[in-house]
Amino acid sequence: MKEIMSIIRMSMVNKTKAALAAEGFPAFTCAKVSGRGKKQMHYQVIEEGFLTGENISTAVAESISEEHRLLPKRWISITVPDEDVARVVDVIINVNQTGHPGDGKIFVLPMEEAIRIRTGEAGDPAIL
Amino acid sequence: MKEIMSIIRMSMVNKTKAALAAEGFPAFTCAKVSGRGKKQMHYQVIEEGFLTGENISTAVAESISEEHRLLPKRWISITVPDEDVARVVDVIINVNQTGHPGDGKIFVLPMEEAIRIRTGEAGDPAIL
Amino acid sequence: MKEIMSIIRMSMVNKTKAALAAEGFPAFTCAKVSGRGKKQMHYQVIEEGFLTGENISTAVAESISEEHRLLPKRWISITVPDEDVARVVDVIINVNQTGHPGDGKIFVLPMEEAIRIRTGEAGDPAIL
Repeated sequence: MKEIMSIIRMSMVNKTKAALAAEGFPAFTCAKVSGRGKKQMHYQVIEEGFLTGENISTAVAESISEEHRLLPKRWISITVPDEDVARVVDVIINVNQTGHPGDGKIFVLPMEEAIRIRTGEAGDPAIL
Repeated sequence: MKEIMSIIRMSMVNKTKAALAAEGFPAFTCAKVSGRGKKQMHYQVIEEGFLTGENISTAVAESISEEHRLLPKRWISITVPDEDVARVVDVIINVNQTGHPGDGKIFVLPMEEAIRIRTGEAGDPAIL
Repeated sequence: MKEIMSIIRMSMVNKTKAALAAEGFPAFTCAKVSGRGKKQMHYQVIEEGFLTGENISTAVAESISEEHRLLPKRWISITVPDEDVARVVDVIINVNQTGHPGDGKIFVLPMEEAIRIRTGEAGDPAIL
């Protein structure tokens, strides 16, 4: 059993939800998050040579802090049996891949147990 | 050490928090999420036969998207030593089990390390 | 690959973000959560002896529920290669350690896979 956690664009939640449900994965949790991915740092600040030693990291940090703000994103989580991981990952990529920076990330985490509170069922029956 | 992550009803947060604290587990993180569990798909749309092939998944997806909206839920997370997992799971089930759909889910994830920032303590002392 | 998940003060997000970026870890996800850590329970209620047996846990629970409210906190998540875990943990401790209760916690979780949606890249290249 794995947790598939994704960070995607706000505008992609409904399409992703619908695509997963159409593939047989209706269960779904979503939350508002802010985030950013990899950004080019301003190496120019360092290369121009007017900053050295301990000052560099502060200057770079301030530059990054001001210019690369966190953007609103959506976090989605879905838990599936091991054999469905590849299919769910494909669905999420197909819906969310625009080719532009900001498409987001998919993370796969090991999940040891899942329990449906209503019935007490554990294991795959709790998530199917 | 395990992370016990649950998706429960909004109205159950305070009762769950109090029950866990009374059992010796006061540490607790909570977030607003939206979610839904397993829902019956509208197989009728397919069985009536006026949709075939590639049209099916789009039609089913739209139907699901419109009719099975995400509901506001609460995500709670608590990290406990391995030997306490069963007890915490029992507390969460006891408080949240109404027998109606929407009672929620409990997930158990492996946790490799925990550190208390104030003291730098790691391992079980950081969460006890 | 590990997920480093932290619960920190609201006021520490920008400083933490900047410090991580300056160390080469600009990718970052943040969410609003409420939480509390370990709190002393009101043993006096029990020791004064006017409560016994089944009444204790209810009384203690109510006392805790009223007096130890959840506080607004920030959850931050960053995924890094195994060899960078210690460095990221150090950065988070250095920025967030005031020595006062409420400094927060750091959790390290195993992460099996990461995929950059834009390119389909998997593994460490997806997070670097």
